[in-house]
Amino acid sequence: MADIILASASPRRKELLTLAGVDFTVKAADVEEVIPENASPDEVVMSLALQKAQAVSKDNADCIVIGSDTVVALDGVILGKPKDEENAREMLIALSGRSHTVYTGVAIIHGEKTKSFCEATEVVFNELSQEEILNYIATKEPMDKAGAYGIQGKGCVLVEKIVGDYFNVVGLPVSRLYKELKSF
Amino acid sequence: MADIILASASPRRKELLTLAGVDFTVKAADVEEVIPENASPDEVVMSLALQKAQAVSKDNADCIVIGSDTVVALDGVILGKPKDEENAREMLIALSGRSHTVYTGVAIIHGEKTKSFCEATEVVFNELSQEEILNYIATKEPMDKAGAYGIQGKGCVLVEKIVGDYFNVVGLPVSRLYKELKSF
Repeated sequence: MADIILASASPRRKELLTLAGVDFTVKAADVEEVIPENASPDEVVMSLALQKAQAVSKDNADCIVIGSDTVVALDGVILGKPKDEENAREMLIALSGRSHTVYTGVAIIHGEKTKSFCEATEVVFNELSQEEILNYIATKEPMDKAGAYGIQGKGCVLVEKIVGDYFNVVGLPVSRLYKELKSF
Repeated sequence: MADIILASASPRRKELLTLAGVDFTVKAADVEEVIPENASPDEVVMSLALQKAQAVSKDNADCIVIGSDTVVALDGVILGKPKDEENAREMLIALSGRSHTVYTGVAIIHGEKTKSFCEATEVVFNELSQEEILNYIATKEPMDKAGAYGIQGKGCVLVEKIVGDYFNVVGLPVSRLYKELKSF
């Protein structure tokens, strides 16, 4: 099997791919992310994953390159990283007591061959009080996270339940990716 | 609020309660676990959680003591830790391509006051090949785990999806516990 490269600077993705028992090296993709207009969340993450994988694949055509991108969507609208604490507060109020979806797109490229897929996980939030939201923002954890929370961090207590792959919410659908790599 | 003690020697539970932002100390419960006869999985984990919490509470009546126990159940039958590699293989074959349930019971005791609850999470396994099962057993990871797998380890690629709290499968339902502690 060809060498595998993970085209991502994310320490979380690196950790998850290691957990899955895959041997790989990391090369962060240097791309100016172009978000397709009028695209649905699954189309956006698959497009961004492909852009990242292509950027690394062009100089590494003999390797299997994995690109990945994750977004949080509420009623089909993508929530990015919060701009400031007020924006984080607005996002957490919007997510409180409701269900949203986390989409991770993955692109696998080996020379001319490409495989893309998207995995979706439903996340149901607890009803959050104003105090809980302010306390969580005070931890600073929301500020660099899409949707203003991290399920693998202090944000774990915000989540009532999930339906789907937990690791997809963290940033990489390891189970599906493992299967796709085997059949690739 | 009174000091909190986690009555468990499990490093995973310690890690999860820390993640939830709870301040606590650890005192492992020294109990001879008595499993009630003809009990359902939820009754078993709630009984064992209570036994552990009571064992620590009797010398620490002024503290809030948390006891916990987790089992894996397939069709209502509890799967313990595998006795040997052959037993691990049997369990993984039984879990392959099917849904099972992970139950964690929690007991919170403060002097005379007691609160118990059980959280259940559904786990759906991928169809596993003989080769995948043997490769996983070769990692030794199954040998000290109820149901012969760890979702937070190399076992992550065995799981297709879950319905419920992921951390409940790891060993402590942090979201529910956080809520119950606040209202306790």
